[in-house]
Amino acid sequence: MTGSGWLAVAGLGPGDEALITPEVSAALARASDVIGYIPYVARIAQRSGLTLHASDNRVEIDRATHALRLAAAGRRVVIVSSGDPGVFAMAAALFEAVEDGPKAWRALDIRVLPGITAMLAASARAGAPLGHDFCAINLSDNLKPWPLIEKRIALAAEADFAIAFYNPRSRARPDGLDRAFAVLREHGAEERPMLFARAVTTPEEVLHVVPLSQARGDMADMRTMVIAGSSRTRTIDRPGTPFLYTPRSAR
Amino acid sequence: MTGSGWLAVAGLGPGDEALITPEVSAALARASDVIGYIPYVARIAQRSGLTLHASDNRVEIDRATHALRLAAAGRRVVIVSSGDPGVFAMAAALFEAVEDGPKAWRALDIRVLPGITAMLAASARAGAPLGHDFCAINLSDNLKPWPLIEKRIALAAEADFAIAFYNPRSRARPDGLDRAFAVLREHGAEERPMLFARAVTTPEEVLHVVPLSQARGDMADMRTMVIAGSSRTRTIDRPGTPFLYTPRSAR
Repeated sequence: MTGSGWLAVAGLGPGDEALITPEVSAALARASDVIGYIPYVARIAQRSGLTLHASDNRVEIDRATHALRLAAAGRRVVIVSSGDPGVFAMAAALFEAVEDGPKAWRALDIRVLPGITAMLAASARAGAPLGHDFCAINLSDNLKPWPLIEKRIALAAEADFAIAFYNPRSRARPDGLDRAFAVLREHGAEERPMLFARAVTTPEEVLHVVPLSQARGDMADMRTMVIAGSSRTRTIDRPGTPFLYTPRSAR
Repeated sequence: MTGSGWLAVAGLGPGDEALITPEVSAALARASDVIGYIPYVARIAQRSGLTLHASDNRVEIDRATHALRLAAAGRRVVIVSSGDPGVFAMAAALFEAVEDGPKAWRALDIRVLPGITAMLAASARAGAPLGHDFCAINLSDNLKPWPLIEKRIALAAEADFAIAFYNPRSRARPDGLDRAFAVLREHGAEERPMLFARAVTTPEEVLHVVPLSQARGDMADMRTMVIAGSSRTRTIDRPGTPFLYTPRSAR
């Protein structure tokens, strides 16, 4: 083990290269190894002296462990993540691996480089639906029981948060989003606006706004961020997609 | 009114220039007018053809209206905001002004350019405390009644969200943060870690982690982001500030 290795977990943002921070670009330029899930590594330009480790392994702990071993051996390693690595992405998995791994890993130079997470990119494209208190809930039930997800949605609705739903749909849970909408409807504000923001900042971007009463789970796919407005979220009609925003005041 | 004007609300991130997106830098390079609160405008380099409108007026609607009038008159206007403009910053105020203003403003070229918001910068510096479901609550009671804030904290604790507190302290509400901690303590998990992250990514950055049982309001000032871990948030002891992260799994 040499002392010169380091490990950064970097957020590539939602897709547009203009949303990658200079901090992340600088880390990628200095890296000897870039590790990540295939579609994220595909965004990194190959160059001499750089090894790309694109993996279709969905076990994030394996990827984190691989990265830690390389950094401990003196490599300059960047784990790439879409959005922000700290929001439902690779950073938590990395620290799980650090905690469970050899004590020496705790002394490594490990940094998290933030990025534009999907909910903030989607919010910006639509207006400002997260302009007041809000929460972020991952609808995947791979890592938590579905009743806990429903409980959180119910409490978030009672708190009148706007809610960003990450991982709203997958083949394994085709009805999860419809069940989430049903929980929201039990808390009223049936006309609150719902934003379906697909592939934001990419050429495939589509934004769609409907009231909760008309929202259906099949309006989202795996590339969609769904944001439920609070009871106070407003739409401003205009040519094209309306602006959507949550006022600062709750008086 | 000419057709060539536009208005962007841009996030400058937490302080480090390396966290300003190229999209924001490009908008600033094309702007004829930059508008904002004095400390944010002070971050913009003066150049020929650019008018800086630094204001100590804290009435955000006035600033938004000024920007809209300039854009409607054909100017290329950037409103600068710290962090992300859509999170407790200028974007919501802008859309309030659009909704209440002349109908012609709705047809203006208005864009929100996202930035790295304070909670994500603070989270990245500490590890990954927002790696599982979380919420963001503004502790300012200028625009909402304090009982609503306490209700939201209680519901967020019941949901076991990690909680990012924006505007944790001000001269007008010296005891607000202590009251917030008291609400959290009523929900147990007294040993959950609390992150006090001051002036992150600037030379004045200080990180401090204590269990909830030892957290005091005077550990924060107006430049501090406070993040309360959930009951599952973990600390990894190491030389210097411990890593802080919330595991992905809630099983």
